[in-house]
Amino acid sequence: MPSNASRIPFDQMFDVLNRILLKHGFSTERALLCARLFTEASCDGVYSHGLNRFPRFIEMIGSGLIEVHAVPLLDAAFGALERWDGSSGPGNLNAHASMSRAITLARKHGIGCVALRNTNHWMRGGSYGWQAADAGLVGICWTNTLPNLPPWGGTKPTLGNNPLVIAVPRREGHVVLDMAMSQFSFGALESYRKRSEPLPVPGGFDTNGVMTSDPAAIEASGRVLPIGYWKGAGLSLMLDAVATLLSAGCATHEIPPEVVKETRLSQVFIAMALPGDGREEMLSEIIQFLKSSPTDGAGVRYPGEHTLAIRKENLAEGIPVDPDVWKQLSDMLLSGR
Amino acid sequence: MPSNASRIPFDQMFDVLNRILLKHGFSTERALLCARLFTEASCDGVYSHGLNRFPRFIEMIGSGLIEVHAVPLLDAAFGALERWDGSSGPGNLNAHASMSRAITLARKHGIGCVALRNTNHWMRGGSYGWQAADAGLVGICWTNTLPNLPPWGGTKPTLGNNPLVIAVPRREGHVVLDMAMSQFSFGALESYRKRSEPLPVPGGFDTNGVMTSDPAAIEASGRVLPIGYWKGAGLSLMLDAVATLLSAGCATHEIPPEVVKETRLSQVFIAMALPGDGREEMLSEIIQFLKSSPTDGAGVRYPGEHTLAIRKENLAEGIPVDPDVWKQLSDMLLSGR
Repeated sequence: MPSNASRIPFDQMFDVLNRILLKHGFSTERALLCARLFTEASCDGVYSHGLNRFPRFIEMIGSGLIEVHAVPLLDAAFGALERWDGSSGPGNLNAHASMSRAITLARKHGIGCVALRNTNHWMRGGSYGWQAADAGLVGICWTNTLPNLPPWGGTKPTLGNNPLVIAVPRREGHVVLDMAMSQFSFGALESYRKRSEPLPVPGGFDTNGVMTSDPAAIEASGRVLPIGYWKGAGLSLMLDAVATLLSAGCATHEIPPEVVKETRLSQVFIAMALPGDGREEMLSEIIQFLKSSPTDGAGVRYPGEHTLAIRKENLAEGIPVDPDVWKQLSDMLLSGR
Repeated sequence: MPSNASRIPFDQMFDVLNRILLKHGFSTERALLCARLFTEASCDGVYSHGLNRFPRFIEMIGSGLIEVHAVPLLDAAFGALERWDGSSGPGNLNAHASMSRAITLARKHGIGCVALRNTNHWMRGGSYGWQAADAGLVGICWTNTLPNLPPWGGTKPTLGNNPLVIAVPRREGHVVLDMAMSQFSFGALESYRKRSEPLPVPGGFDTNGVMTSDPAAIEASGRVLPIGYWKGAGLSLMLDAVATLLSAGCATHEIPPEVVKETRLSQVFIAMALPGDGREEMLSEIIQFLKSSPTDGAGVRYPGEHTLAIRKENLAEGIPVDPDVWKQLSDMLLSGR
């Protein structure tokens, strides 16, 4: 967030987004859900895939890449595993519908899986993990992306920076991992550069192929590092392969390599029922043990801990917004369309 | 492998292990499968969890931690998701039975999941990925371990170095990711140290808490790095949480922290059917695209590529063995028990 950020109450942000979506032809119900998903992403601190991404979302509607009214269509059912065609619908609505269907399948079969093809960017992946955990289930989901991550040993991006989400419900707040395959996102590199700070650990290569913690040098080369070098590169490939083969959708190399047009993605949504057996407290014990490690840094965190803290703050204080983005949205609301 | 390694033909190694297992009371059928899994691990180059691990496996039978005749017992069935009790049986036989059951469930329901508790070390995790892919299915499995990985920011191990396996079938040889959560295993650190080589990338901290590529310094501190720092630490926690809650088994912190006695593990086995739809070649296309990246290193590899090459070599030339370990096994065969 820029230093001149101001804070907007959750309800106000939600209302503005909802009204813009209605202007763009969304049905009442779909506008509400779509606005909520965007607002929640910003409220949880994922500004890049919340409010800041909204103008591009509207742009993709304008250019016809996102079909406002399209819903996923069942392509094939194999029992607890189903294949759906996203019909180029709004990515977050498609993803929400898919996890919702996976939850229904899991309630019937113990585990459920929806493979979705031909969909758009799902915005914040964590949303669908929280969705499963809110329903009391384990949620696992991932998406592929356009080629934007060089493999280990390679100088050009032939992998996607495919995010993986794993969520487990917990009474005191769910535990949700939402991680992309690169060590740092391009958004994170930009933030460090603007603050004139080096990365805390090497995050990529400079144009000479030397590993570096200088964010600007990595932005210049485009060579971000996969997490764990060869390991994250391998994981990224497998996520693309499984999503593509299960959904019969596009693989990373078939997705047009134009960031602003990223579309026709393939995704997987898995939900797993947790039978009540008195072991619900185990997750709290696991976290307690995790945190029992002495620290020589800034402490030990569990996945989603930061999210819970930011959410609390932003609900109380308002959600920080970039004034330029906020003005852009206000203009959208006032303009003819 | 030590420099004085000699090579033993696959059939001979398999025969020796089979006969030792029979001496320890394994049934004919179970001895054959157990010997095959150990031999295949070594044949595929995973010596640490093949032949080299066999003496400890026999030791754990002797100390009563592994019950030779125990088989997994169905604890609860929820349709496509089942919970089994490993009954302290041999870890590789339990894991093989569990993936086999997940495959059966997936053939019926599209996807199948077995959560297994109270089992022993599964030796090479990749085995069960290859098993699913050999059956024409996608396989995903993981296990928890005892606490042996410090979390990001922490100085003491409160996470397990939980391996994750993802396998996708392919006609020219399956693509199988088999990765633990640490950047380097302790076995790998030992190999680099013995060759007096630094690690190719930082692999942990020294006793002063400084990140280092010196294998001996990391062995001294025990502070290996999770892949992707905070990201791999988060992934490790989630794998433990899901395995524990689904199986109602022990979490990492409940597993006795004695390496030689590692037992009562929790594991998850997922199989997913790939409906024939003419997209089988997509995986080869994905790999072709991956490898289209120019390289400024030793080239770009896909998960399992090295395994396929080593397997071919070891089948043709014999499997390299540590002469001391091989002598130990020959002695076992000749001894009273």
